Amino acid sequence: MAQLLNDRRDVQFVLYEQLDIESLTKDPKYADLNRKTFDLVISEARTLATKELLPISAEGDREGCSFENGEVKVPESFHRVYQLIMEGEWIALSDDIDVGGQGMPQVVKMVVDELFQGANTCLAVGLGLTHGAGKLVEIYGTEEQKKLYLKKIYSGEWSGTMALTEPEAGSEVGELTTSAKKNPDGTYSITGNKIFITQAENNLTENIIHPVLARVEGAAKGSRGISLFLVSKYLVNEDGTMGERNDIECTGIEEKIGIHGSPTCSMAMGGKGTCIGTILGKENDGLKNMFHMMNEARLFVAMQGLGLSSTAYLYALNYARERFQGRHITKLRDPDALQVPIIEHPDIRRMLMMMKASVEGLRSLNYYVGFCMDKAELETTGKEEKKRLNGLIALMIPICKAHTTERGFELCNLAIQIHGGAGACREYPVEQLLRDIKIATIYEGTTGIQAMDLLGRKLGMNKGQLFQDFIDEVGKIISAAKEQPRIKGLADNFDAAMEKLKVTASTIGKAAGGRQVEEAFALAYPFLEVFGDMSIAWMLLWRASAATTRLAKIVGDADEKKLADKIAKNKDAAFYDGQIQTARYFITSVIPKTMGMMDAINNLDGAVAKISDAGFGGK
Amino acid sequence: MAQLLNDRRDVQFVLYEQLDIESLTKDPKYADLNRKTFDLVISEARTLATKELLPISAEGDREGCSFENGEVKVPESFHRVYQLIMEGEWIALSDDIDVGGQGMPQVVKMVVDELFQGANTCLAVGLGLTHGAGKLVEIYGTEEQKKLYLKKIYSGEWSGTMALTEPEAGSEVGELTTSAKKNPDGTYSITGNKIFITQAENNLTENIIHPVLARVEGAAKGSRGISLFLVSKYLVNEDGTMGERNDIECTGIEEKIGIHGSPTCSMAMGGKGTCIGTILGKENDGLKNMFHMMNEARLFVAMQGLGLSSTAYLYALNYARERFQGRHITKLRDPDALQVPIIEHPDIRRMLMMMKASVEGLRSLNYYVGFCMDKAELETTGKEEKKRLNGLIALMIPICKAHTTERGFELCNLAIQIHGGAGACREYPVEQLLRDIKIATIYEGTTGIQAMDLLGRKLGMNKGQLFQDFIDEVGKIISAAKEQPRIKGLADNFDAAMEKLKVTASTIGKAAGGRQVEEAFALAYPFLEVFGDMSIAWMLLWRASAATTRLAKIVGDADEKKLADKIAKNKDAAFYDGQIQTARYFITSVIPKTMGMMDAINNLDGAVAKISDAGFGGK
Repeated sequence: MAQLLNDRRDVQFVLYEQLDIESLTKDPKYADLNRKTFDLVISEARTLATKELLPISAEGDREGCSFENGEVKVPESFHRVYQLIMEGEWIALSDDIDVGGQGMPQVVKMVVDELFQGANTCLAVGLGLTHGAGKLVEIYGTEEQKKLYLKKIYSGEWSGTMALTEPEAGSEVGELTTSAKKNPDGTYSITGNKIFITQAENNLTENIIHPVLARVEGAAKGSRGISLFLVSKYLVNEDGTMGERNDIECTGIEEKIGIHGSPTCSMAMGGKGTCIGTILGKENDGLKNMFHMMNEARLFVAMQGLGLSSTAYLYALNYARERFQGRHITKLRDPDALQVPIIEHPDIRRMLMMMKASVEGLRSLNYYVGFCMDKAELETTGKEEKKRLNGLIALMIPICKAHTTERGFELCNLAIQIHGGAGACREYPVEQLLRDIKIATIYEGTTGIQAMDLLGRKLGMNKGQLFQDFIDEVGKIISAAKEQPRIKGLADNFDAAMEKLKVTASTIGKAAGGRQVEEAFALAYPFLEVFGDMSIAWMLLWRASAATTRLAKIVGDADEKKLADKIAKNKDAAFYDGQIQTARYFITSVIPKTMGMMDAINNLDGAVAKISDAGFGGK
Repeated sequence: MAQLLNDRRDVQFVLYEQLDIESLTKDPKYADLNRKTFDLVISEARTLATKELLPISAEGDREGCSFENGEVKVPESFHRVYQLIMEGEWIALSDDIDVGGQGMPQVVKMVVDELFQGANTCLAVGLGLTHGAGKLVEIYGTEEQKKLYLKKIYSGEWSGTMALTEPEAGSEVGELTTSAKKNPDGTYSITGNKIFITQAENNLTENIIHPVLARVEGAAKGSRGISLFLVSKYLVNEDGTMGERNDIECTGIEEKIGIHGSPTCSMAMGGKGTCIGTILGKENDGLKNMFHMMNEARLFVAMQGLGLSSTAYLYALNYARERFQGRHITKLRDPDALQVPIIEHPDIRRMLMMMKASVEGLRSLNYYVGFCMDKAELETTGKEEKKRLNGLIALMIPICKAHTTERGFELCNLAIQIHGGAGACREYPVEQLLRDIKIATIYEGTTGIQAMDLLGRKLGMNKGQLFQDFIDEVGKIISAAKEQPRIKGLADNFDAAMEKLKVTASTIGKAAGGRQVEEAFALAYPFLEVFGDMSIAWMLLWRASAATTRLAKIVGDADEKKLADKIAKNKDAAFYDGQIQTARYFITSVIPKTMGMMDAINNLDGAVAKISDAGFGGK
């Protein structure tokens, strides 16, 4: 049967033939694990995603969430599946066993995230938020807080949120006005309103735990005066049982273009009485602490982009194989020619190839970053190497988040396009994917915010060492590929593009730190896009390199004719050859465009900064 | 008050300062018209669009269409406004007065189309179909058919459709199976099913007229054996009154991602009795005749793309001016800095500039093609010039259609992005625009079909003369701009890009006609995209050239400082300077990417053609 979520073979290839995540098990931290365990976990997740999450996705979209008298109902069908997720203990998959986790590596969790998000992003996104709330308690909570909350959150018995955004403080979190007043008993009374808070009210769980950003009375203006609080829907008694209803109330939910099954709530705290919160970490450390877990949250949204794109790719691929329409391009004038499946048409192939290259490149990139996170936490990883890995992660996070979701949106659009008229109809699943993925370029820091993070913070961090470490990592792959005759040409071309990237990074980096700051930041997103495309190409070349070695083992010194034969008969040969063709496509047909974008960046043009307000027209 | 649909000043600029459409009135055909008449018509259309069509657009989206027992209801609020449109005689605005039209030039009708589509595309799109059905009757109808149908269609009393698509014959129209059998009285009995037929059933009009493609029994297979029929919901008596109900029935409507107010119908003909049709034109000429009006239909969809994009731009621009959030990029570390409207942020400006450049460039391009249509029909236009103009039109139509709608989709997405989280919410209008515009890249020939038309037919037509004429037209603008010091540099850069376009067209053209046909057609859409971007740049340079002349008249030899002063105080100066900045942005920051895409095309890579089916994975 045709696959629907992500391609099993491809996932295996990345984990074991590209990244070699099995190497983690050599470290004491993962000594009890092995490839079989990883595969078992992934296989179970795939079954759950395919058989339970996916079938209720369209239904959840149609039914949506409802709001009445402060109560929010999620789609009815979600309840049973949520119980299955809880039973499977999926939420804290990669957390330590002693805090209620399953002790798996982050990279394995990411495969699961991709599967769950690709199957039913509305249900899956809530799991990520719950986990994030738990993580904050784990890191910053007192022993008391941990005892009362942690296991209930990590198990999913209580759900979690992330309460940052306010009507007048969206991307500019430091402007928030929610206030906190310390009470004699050490708790705080919280007053304020939050908007766009995912699952802040829902009927999946009996209690809901909100990490809330607020300003203690008298604290500094701006981001320096923000503290982090734990506010629960029901107060929790000392024995862990649920106490009184706290004064945090849902005042409405948004009607949105997509993720209809995921409630987006407006919340009022302290509007009717007293909303009690306890502090998480120290006063005024709120934003710093919240940002500490930003990497995880942003990577999770990247997996939303990846999961939905991957599902979109397989839907489009299956449709293109099944749908017969039109004659082959070489037989347009032959009246007796039969109609062919549309996958044989060049333009459909182009779209599928773009989808394949992007999905696979982004899969490798995101898994790679997860794998770096795992390596940074190994007992045998030295201090310097940890620093290097954490730097690489910091550099790549904005790219993972923004590029996966922006590309993902385009890929879901291509999936519709491949379906033709059917793609725009709700009878087919792809239009929902496009609607669902849209929000991913906005929340957890818009694409514009990611681009500023990359250019304004990460690129110059540690005197540019993060970027240099990236260049070195890419260089290793290029060097290896240059040794392989079949892909040497690709490696050479990509190498030239990398040289241009270095120049571009230097140009825009200098401008951003100097007098051309406005020109530079108007090019921050194009720069991120360039960086993202180059990262995809890096991953695809790495894949091609691994595939070339393995293909040689299957086909030996076969000539072109025999090679084609092998590919037609041997599934592995076809897979590896597919990897090489994909890298070839991306480096030969996409990277030249990326290099053109670098030329544009190097022009550092000032028109965007210079045009007058009236010049934009419209008044 | 902020404008909402298209920018008045910009429309005026294109019509009178760029294209000079007033020149049409020198011809006897338009001798009775003048600029005042044009402006009056456009102004009335703007009022109707703003005050009547726009306010019911969101309501139409929420309410949608309903289907019950073969009857389709459009949104309730559409009825009153449809009457206003009929009263204003808007449908046949550019048709001859003696057939019931208003005798306006096509280019004026396009401004109206842009306004109506931008305000309420669901209502507007039906007007275009009705007009198209009328046009077929006007061109191919017998005197009897014209007498019975034409004025009722052109007035909008009866609505029209375009019934091509069948379940197994989407883009491949030649595969259709609907059949026609000639009756002794000269009529035909039609049997078959059609899908995706816009407004084929609706309760706006009492009768509905369907031009239907079908194959006469015994006719040739494929597209050569297709004939065109006129099938009406109610038969029409000889005296013009409505007769019996014909056996054409709606069997259902689609639930779609967007255009909820526009019913997309499945139709069964001859399923319950006899569906009577009369032939339009000769037997077996059906596809040729239908395609004769393809230019009009495709340009109309381009205006859908343009109208929605233009509205998206103005919504985004207004929001960016009103929404305060974050500090200016040069004051990020100043704790006392105030929040600024987001239009001051570089990344927001970049998105707005991309929207402005694209919308304005596409506006000029589409109006230009409409203006060419008008010029081709003037009494004083010679035979050779007519041929040249029609060639240019034929070349540009696939670009107008595909590029306006593909870019338009991206622009609506940018409008959401500029709104941040609000953009994804139904409370704001931009998410509907994204959903509504999606279908425009699919119907009337998908983007892939347009790309094949451009590469496979138009590029090599008349031994490449069409393309040469395009080059010559662009060359005139470049030469003029090179004479203007302020934009000479831009003209030089664009000239270099045009040289590269010539090489690229030659490379891909030869490949398409030779042994690399699969490689070439896998690059057909990238080539169309390149051609489209270059066309936008051409138009923007033309605009900049016109603006430079006019700006010089206002500011004289002012130095930079004084120029900035003038721009701040003089609205016209700001507008003209905005034109120059926009061209500068596009040629300096977008065209380098386009040139990179040309490099990719010139690589003529074969990976897309070569990858094996199994190599795509998924099984």
